[in-house]
Amino acid sequence: MQNIKRLDLADAGTLLAAAKAAAQAIGVSMCIAIVDDSGNLIAFERMDGGKIVSITIAIDKAFTAAAARRATHDYNTASQPGMPAYGVNTALGGRMIVVGGGLPVVWEGAVVGGIGVSSGTPEQDRLVAQEAIDRFLS
Amino acid sequence: MQNIKRLDLADAGTLLAAAKAAAQAIGVSMCIAIVDDSGNLIAFERMDGGKIVSITIAIDKAFTAAAARRATHDYNTASQPGMPAYGVNTALGGRMIVVGGGLPVVWEGAVVGGIGVSSGTPEQDRLVAQEAIDRFLS
Amino acid sequence: MQNIKRLDLADAGTLLAAAKAAAQAIGVSMCIAIVDDSGNLIAFERMDGGKIVSITIAIDKAFTAAAARRATHDYNTASQPGMPAYGVNTALGGRMIVVGGGLPVVWEGAVVGGIGVSSGTPEQDRLVAQEAIDRFLS
Amino acid sequence: MQNIKRLDLADAGTLLAAAKAAAQAIGVSMCIAIVDDSGNLIAFERMDGGKIVSITIAIDKAFTAAAARRATHDYNTASQPGMPAYGVNTALGGRMIVVGGGLPVVWEGAVVGGIGVSSGTPEQDRLVAQEAIDRFLS
Repeated sequence: MQNIKRLDLADAGTLLAAAKAAAQAIGVSMCIAIVDDSGNLIAFERMDGGKIVSITIAIDKAFTAAAARRATHDYNTASQPGMPAYGVNTALGGRMIVVGGGLPVVWEGAVVGGIGVSSGTPEQDRLVAQEAIDRFLS
Repeated sequence: MQNIKRLDLADAGTLLAAAKAAAQAIGVSMCIAIVDDSGNLIAFERMDGGKIVSITIAIDKAFTAAAARRATHDYNTASQPGMPAYGVNTALGGRMIVVGGGLPVVWEGAVVGGIGVSSGTPEQDRLVAQEAIDRFLS
Repeated sequence: MQNIKRLDLADAGTLLAAAKAAAQAIGVSMCIAIVDDSGNLIAFERMDGGKIVSITIAIDKAFTAAAARRATHDYNTASQPGMPAYGVNTALGGRMIVVGGGLPVVWEGAVVGGIGVSSGTPEQDRLVAQEAIDRFLS
Repeated sequence: MQNIKRLDLADAGTLLAAAKAAAQAIGVSMCIAIVDDSGNLIAFERMDGGKIVSITIAIDKAFTAAAARRATHDYNTASQPGMPAYGVNTALGGRMIVVGGGLPVVWEGAVVGGIGVSSGTPEQDRLVAQEAIDRFLS
């Protein structure tokens, strides 16, 4: 039998609030998704003005990061033409997101969830996700 | 050009908190989704213990209620065998949910969003959704 | 080699305008779709106030009617529990619509297209579609 | 509560007619789609001779432009190999179109809808979409 550590709703709320604060600090309305260790959604918020396409992209970034246990910007590099993971972005009907902004949440060495951020540039999305995790872990 | 009224994130947060309180009052961990007038997700929470299948069901109940401007329990009746809307539940790839727990949010005569609740019985889901709307409007 | 007769865009416009007039006459804002003999979309309009879910449902009603060469209300009867076509509504990922409001357009004995109407009751949708065809053929 | 501005069917008809005139002027039969601020279809026409694949591409170009508030030809540049948004085209099951011909419709500073044009070269599609918007705004 396995023992799994998993974000609870209170953790997800902390991550979400931190991401929202970071997004507000750079003046971008974002979609923010928090998933558990299995990639299933725990909490989601679309800030007023967040993009409609970013709803699914944020959820799928969080899913990719948690379920593949890898940052989506790492996949961006790894899936470039000529690279071994080239084409992975079309897997799972397109749920594998290879654009920055999805990060696994690691706790005591284990992936316990993921965060996905979308509506800014991939770099903005990634920084907001990272800041949320940094604040959560501290 | 049309002028549309739409729930904002603060409204969605109020509805979500009210639904969560109502769910806690009956001791059922639920998934709760709030969508806008067009059926697009604004906010979502899965309470600790909420069912995995209920993530999508809650989101799709809210979508159905807002985008069809009709309570999902009304569709349950209207789509029974022998009824004119029989079979509507498989439209939109199955996103049309005909199980109770999805309600349109009506403001000054217009549908401004929807709420979807899932994890309890359809009757429990419906009552929690209704209580959230009642508290929101008061 | 086959010779196929097919609605052109002008025909589709005539059908669409007639359906719109019939919908206005009963005071219901509807989604109206016209497809060709192969079930592919030629023209679509969502009247102000037409339902969001009805966009896809209208298109799929027209598709079903043309591509199956059968009225969707006939499928409603034929797909009831115990009937031979029971379950057909889940085929094609749910694109087979068995709710009234989709009619094939028949010209000189051949199906040259289809019309799908959605947002009212199935009976209203069907009558509006029928009135559009009647006006088109006269 | 938010106040949203959204194209109505009359606006969509104006955009569609202008796009059709621009397409006829260059002698290309096109598919033209107009969506609202949330990316949902308002009106569509396939000119006689418009391509079958272009039905969905035009609709999804309009969706992408409105729901991401960005021209699809901008995504074409941003999603090239080595670029940060590389791979975004497979998100949302492939509904994110990164080929030119989709433009947001901006009114008083807000995105109130989108137009998608397909069947010509991406450059032709883009010019037809732009001409429709120019004529609409004037």
